[in-house]
Amino acid sequence: MDIANFIKELTEILGPQGILTDAKDTETYNTDWRQIFTGTSIAVLRPQTTQQVADAVKICARYKVAIVPQGGNTSLVGGAIPSTNDVQVVLSLSRMNKIRNIDTLDSTITLEAGVILEDAQNAAKEAGLYLPIVISSQGSAQIGGIIATNAGGNNTLRYGNAREFVLGLEVVTADGQILHNLRRLRKDNTGYALKQIFIGSEGTLGIITAAVLHLHPYPRSTEVALCAIPDLQKALRLLHLFNSHNPAALQAFEYISQKGMELVCSQFPELHFPLETTAPVYIIVELALPEQGDGLRTLFETVLGEAFEEEVVLDAVLAESETQRQNLWRFREEQAESQKRAGANIKNDVSVPISSIPDFVERATRACESFYPGIQVTPFGHLGDGNIHFNLVQPQHEDGKLFMSKSHDIMDAVSQVVYELEGSFSAEHGIGQLKNYMMPSWRGGVELELMKKIKESLDPCNILNPGKIFPQDAH
Amino acid sequence: MDIANFIKELTEILGPQGILTDAKDTETYNTDWRQIFTGTSIAVLRPQTTQQVADAVKICARYKVAIVPQGGNTSLVGGAIPSTNDVQVVLSLSRMNKIRNIDTLDSTITLEAGVILEDAQNAAKEAGLYLPIVISSQGSAQIGGIIATNAGGNNTLRYGNAREFVLGLEVVTADGQILHNLRRLRKDNTGYALKQIFIGSEGTLGIITAAVLHLHPYPRSTEVALCAIPDLQKALRLLHLFNSHNPAALQAFEYISQKGMELVCSQFPELHFPLETTAPVYIIVELALPEQGDGLRTLFETVLGEAFEEEVVLDAVLAESETQRQNLWRFREEQAESQKRAGANIKNDVSVPISSIPDFVERATRACESFYPGIQVTPFGHLGDGNIHFNLVQPQHEDGKLFMSKSHDIMDAVSQVVYELEGSFSAEHGIGQLKNYMMPSWRGGVELELMKKIKESLDPCNILNPGKIFPQDAH
Repeated sequence: MDIANFIKELTEILGPQGILTDAKDTETYNTDWRQIFTGTSIAVLRPQTTQQVADAVKICARYKVAIVPQGGNTSLVGGAIPSTNDVQVVLSLSRMNKIRNIDTLDSTITLEAGVILEDAQNAAKEAGLYLPIVISSQGSAQIGGIIATNAGGNNTLRYGNAREFVLGLEVVTADGQILHNLRRLRKDNTGYALKQIFIGSEGTLGIITAAVLHLHPYPRSTEVALCAIPDLQKALRLLHLFNSHNPAALQAFEYISQKGMELVCSQFPELHFPLETTAPVYIIVELALPEQGDGLRTLFETVLGEAFEEEVVLDAVLAESETQRQNLWRFREEQAESQKRAGANIKNDVSVPISSIPDFVERATRACESFYPGIQVTPFGHLGDGNIHFNLVQPQHEDGKLFMSKSHDIMDAVSQVVYELEGSFSAEHGIGQLKNYMMPSWRGGVELELMKKIKESLDPCNILNPGKIFPQDAH
Repeated sequence: MDIANFIKELTEILGPQGILTDAKDTETYNTDWRQIFTGTSIAVLRPQTTQQVADAVKICARYKVAIVPQGGNTSLVGGAIPSTNDVQVVLSLSRMNKIRNIDTLDSTITLEAGVILEDAQNAAKEAGLYLPIVISSQGSAQIGGIIATNAGGNNTLRYGNAREFVLGLEVVTADGQILHNLRRLRKDNTGYALKQIFIGSEGTLGIITAAVLHLHPYPRSTEVALCAIPDLQKALRLLHLFNSHNPAALQAFEYISQKGMELVCSQFPELHFPLETTAPVYIIVELALPEQGDGLRTLFETVLGEAFEEEVVLDAVLAESETQRQNLWRFREEQAESQKRAGANIKNDVSVPISSIPDFVERATRACESFYPGIQVTPFGHLGDGNIHFNLVQPQHEDGKLFMSKSHDIMDAVSQVVYELEGSFSAEHGIGQLKNYMMPSWRGGVELELMKKIKESLDPCNILNPGKIFPQDAH
């Protein structure tokens, strides 16, 4: 192909600010933030308008150059990094970062794909509204990527995944057409729900350029507690107790393992362990409601009272201030960082039916410990919706490389248990290029066949994010 | 085609009980319950198992006979009635009516497509759980149809449409394969969300044979009030007041127009109008929470207190007993029936952004009254989610036929206002064969093109429910 002309045509459309070709400029776009995936691209496109995206896609389609859409580049599965062996461009949505509209009566926000999640949250908050997608990468992750990966997070339990927030989408198709689907409607049964097809499709079916999200009332009272609990079965019982009072008050129900708590305390000595007893299981419970008052405090006291009586909770501390709330949350939020500091580590983002969580954690722990003696099993995550980050840290004083050389085997050992319990091998991180090899065994047969049919119908030339979701030999 | 052999092959698969060919047996399957649509079919298939559905689809595909999937036959848009000019069979899911499993820990129900909604609700209730899809046809409507049409209802405001309940689906594809997708997971980002494609596709992409639904805790306290309100703007203010206290307590927020209230009172004289003042707008508010106690009563008193002070509410009555609750609801539930008793009537199931409701009702009323003097404008419905049933009743003492001869013009007058306010011409009833002619002007261009691509990829021979959703010339 004539690369010079290709770049020239794109530069005419995007302007000199809208295209990067120097290796030193494109480097950060070709590598993910964990530096696990590195690919190559001819150029990084940085359009500022939906029309520019559409025009750029048309040029790429004509030259048969594949496009890797990229948001904040916070994927944990290499979903936004080009491969090494194809002719590709990265299309960064970062410069499409306008909040087009906030409507307080409708509780909606209309915004472009490149808006950073935290900026969207702040804009909503200023309008008295709440965008409760809470993920650790929210300072970098962008709305387009969040929708394209159907992101989850701490508050999924109550508000659902990103999918549940999306009222409308604007999407550029594989042939460079613009789907204007930014309707601000709660109910609309007029033909196929096209937006649902693009949500979670990881940039393989279209490029999301803007969205309308449904917002919630901003909580004016919030209460957080950290609880020490004898086992996971009892943790499920505690979840049930909260749900049987006011399921809507429950905003997060997050699990920390004993080992994970120990790691955080040793890696972050400034954090003072706030309970009087250690326990096999810790749960962070966050309650929130839009109304002010001490209703949540009373609710906590009622439920924890019942829980102490049933010996479901051994010890608990309620945050007495905003600072203390943030401190309690850090025990959960620093799980990933403390594991990173402790050495090489492997992430398993899995889900099982909620009732199977105790069984899953026990069996997966046993499987890992017997396969790799000394391995540090540090599961944590979203117990309330069945999504556990079953992470594993290398044995102390060992070579991390040896550990990582066994990473596929260790992941397979965990996956085997997930499979037997009818769970999912990727609850919220998606497939990207890390897990596409697993698709045939987990989603093979009719499922993968239907996915391929949809891919071929919407992107017949495989221009959009090739090598993601589908295993390499699928095209 | 060789009809005798076709029937013979099907009979071998389905057994003599599983196929009806006599006109007197098939008649009720070929006409909708409102008797607006009547079609013809060679046979009605009544499979009992998913495998039978798959085998029957394969036979139909081989003979190129189209299949019209049918549940409780309660569609308001002729979605489950065959056309008159094609060779078709109706495939009734009625005999696939087993509840396969209820899991109280996971709060899930796994059930077959032919289970009647009310039976599913009752089974959930016995397990202490709640299936809050509340529609007037719940005594006949079946789960498969509810999912295939993404049904809404009175509680969408709080719990969402049918889509939000579906964790997993079992679907027979157009080529007779079985998609086993009955995972009971809250989070699962593994490739395209295939279930989302089938939900709301009105039987045109696959035949839903079973589903896993997510259930909610059964409410142990419920409070209902009927409020008289000066105008719709103030009704939105009342909605805001409830939401700013506890949005999760609000289970329904239903609108009745002044004219609609008068019609119910005159057609159902046994219902005693319970307020001391009439008003342009009535709202039924239902609050519900899983916890027992008088919290909701207090919430009602707090919010209504504020509302009286702001002159948002002129008068209100709170139900003091279960009987009174049911009686208050009847003013809303008998809207459709009272309109039917009052003569010929036209249904418009539309939605607009919530903030546009007052504007919409005012402009659409004016448009109808000036087009057809004497017309009785009786809108009602789901104010809380922007979905208004903008129904119209013939003038008193006039010929209903004359009125109905203008039905398309009247619907167009309403639609014009909806269009200008960026609303939808079918909020919850779907498209079926009643509204498919409207698709090109409302969802034309890229939208309809993408829908057709998906249809062609999943059902290339147009075997599944042809003539629905897409206008006739689309295939």
